Amino acid sequence: MAVIPLMVDVGEKNIVIIGGGHVAERRVQSLLTGGARLTVISPEIKEGIRSLWEEEQLDWKQKYVETEDLDGAFLIIVATNDSVVNQAVIKVSPPNSLLNVAGEADQGNVHFPAHFKQGKLSVGISTNGASPMLSAKIKNELHTIYDESYGDYVDFLYESRQLIKDSLLDKMAQTLLLKELLSESFLNKHKQRQTIEWLKSLCRKGR
Amino acid sequence: MAVIPLMVDVGEKNIVIIGGGHVAERRVQSLLTGGARLTVISPEIKEGIRSLWEEEQLDWKQKYVETEDLDGAFLIIVATNDSVVNQAVIKVSPPNSLLNVAGEADQGNVHFPAHFKQGKLSVGISTNGASPMLSAKIKNELHTIYDESYGDYVDFLYESRQLIKDSLLDKMAQTLLLKELLSESFLNKHKQRQTIEWLKSLCRKGR
Repeated sequence: MAVIPLMVDVGEKNIVIIGGGHVAERRVQSLLTGGARLTVISPEIKEGIRSLWEEEQLDWKQKYVETEDLDGAFLIIVATNDSVVNQAVIKVSPPNSLLNVAGEADQGNVHFPAHFKQGKLSVGISTNGASPMLSAKIKNELHTIYDESYGDYVDFLYESRQLIKDSLLDKMAQTLLLKELLSESFLNKHKQRQTIEWLKSLCRKGR
Repeated sequence: MAVIPLMVDVGEKNIVIIGGGHVAERRVQSLLTGGARLTVISPEIKEGIRSLWEEEQLDWKQKYVETEDLDGAFLIIVATNDSVVNQAVIKVSPPNSLLNVAGEADQGNVHFPAHFKQGKLSVGISTNGASPMLSAKIKNELHTIYDESYGDYVDFLYESRQLIKDSLLDKMAQTLLLKELLSESFLNKHKQRQTIEWLKSLCRKGR
């Protein structure tokens, strides 16, 4: 499997999850955060999924999956513990559909890396199924290195970048300034505030 | 944009790249490594793309893009420097298609995180377009932490995992053993070889 990491916007996309157990439950949580439209297809569902269904945060079809259920799906997640069902779904999935087969990284064409977010910063770690435990360990290590301060820091970099782009500085000066902001000292919130004020005054002067 | 990181297998998938400049050239390289079937659509192409086309590693349609060119594409990459063309492509892209608009992370529904690989280990870093420079910096930092030794280490973990799964150890013992292999001492190649030998003997004894 020759995989590449992609950041995918699942907002407003139809995602079909086949199965209603633990694995489905875990996926549902992270996909709802991403703003996806979820349909869970399963005769039975875990309590956590049921609650979300009762809150109308997702659809539930209380049935076994049929081919039509996959129509128009942006991403199909196969998460039953019945390998016959799993294989059948893989077989009838539309060409080009994104397909994740839980627990079988080499089937389907998508898998979910271990990942964490700090505000806009997002880091995904995968070992291509070789060692999920190592992915999780590295995730935890990185989560410690890139702690909460990075959420604010990335917001600061974003705001600074907009201000610098809007300024009358030439391209070279803009690039140098953007590079300078990568210095560790700018992780300091006080320095961030000072810098934003300075950049704002720079923009005003330029006008 | 509510994005989630996905590992996507692009092997044998049709990917259409609109544009033949620097950005297209960079994408082509990484996607070919992933085993994708590439079609570049552009009246002109950079030397690097031309070489790959001459080596029959990709298709080239020497023309401006038309709607039909997008048929059956798994992923569409819009990389012209003409925003009218870019907008037109975005408009006619099939629903559910994966769409990347180079330099405009908030358009399209896919973007490419900064990433590096060490064998099976793959790490992707994104700031959701807030600071591509920070993504690149973090990538370099992590590439230093998770150096070449990790490529071999993940291969070792993979082989060990297969051997442990094939052994007659009970689930609990298997999990404990897998956890133990995450200790840093196993980054040592000599210890890796010893461990593989030991696991093999364990499997033989179990039969």
